[in-house]
Amino acid sequence: MKQVRYFAILFCVALSVQAVAQETPIFPKGEKAVNVHHVGNVWLKELNVADSVFTYGTSVAIFDPGARLDWHSHPGGQILIITEGIGYYQEKGKPKQIVRPGEVVKCLPGVEHWHGATPESGVTYIATSPAQNGKTIWLHRVSDKEYNRTK
Amino acid sequence: MKQVRYFAILFCVALSVQAVAQETPIFPKGEKAVNVHHVGNVWLKELNVADSVFTYGTSVAIFDPGARLDWHSHPGGQILIITEGIGYYQEKGKPKQIVRPGEVVKCLPGVEHWHGATPESGVTYIATSPAQNGKTIWLHRVSDKEYNRTK
Repeated sequence: MKQVRYFAILFCVALSVQAVAQETPIFPKGEKAVNVHHVGNVWLKELNVADSVFTYGTSVAIFDPGARLDWHSHPGGQILIITEGIGYYQEKGKPKQIVRPGEVVKCLPGVEHWHGATPESGVTYIATSPAQNGKTIWLHRVSDKEYNRTK
Repeated sequence: MKQVRYFAILFCVALSVQAVAQETPIFPKGEKAVNVHHVGNVWLKELNVADSVFTYGTSVAIFDPGARLDWHSHPGGQILIITEGIGYYQEKGKPKQIVRPGEVVKCLPGVEHWHGATPESGVTYIATSPAQNGKTIWLHRVSDKEYNRTK
């Protein structure tokens, strides 16, 4: 009986360590973004602001499951580097893609697209955005049909 | 006795899952870099090459424990975003810093510095480098005294 108790304790410790290992995110959540150009919960954290030396801004975006940005485009383009979770990325006229940690998405200037988390998993990405040519152009909401489409 | 065996199996499963969770890196190792400007094992993977739209290159560097770059400087500067492990960063005339996941280091143009893994832990970072003003200027090796100094 002592042995059973011993293994039960060891098992609980192993599970707890595992939970900590999985749940420690790389980036702390930044500011919760006000729901103007997205639905769901999104946190943004600027890592650097564009200046005369670094002519691109870098930020981290953390999405709760189900959260997604509206359709938009970047006059200067944007590069997304997925670091955690599972997300969606879709360009106008193309199928929705699933994106995972380590994957890189290059959004070319003027291309209409949206990105966000999947319904079941949140997603975190680093975005680098050339500052020249102006700010993001926001378009319309991603419909539930677009978000839930499986093909 | 059956119960003991049951918990022993559960414990092993929990430990294995934990090991997988901890050992799955975000980025696959790229090309192993030839030991010209560093000591130890370093893998590099380009995420994007600078062009007329994205005027900065992005790459991932993975260092084995003990690996470190030589002292160097960037004519256009460089931003490091630590994603995994524990590393060192040092600028000339300043103490060596320990850097961890989520931390960002801005290396300004012309500032002599080096970075690498700690002796006990590897480190992974994303580096973004403005392409203007030319390539990295390599200087001399980091001495063991510099690498091992604790203050």
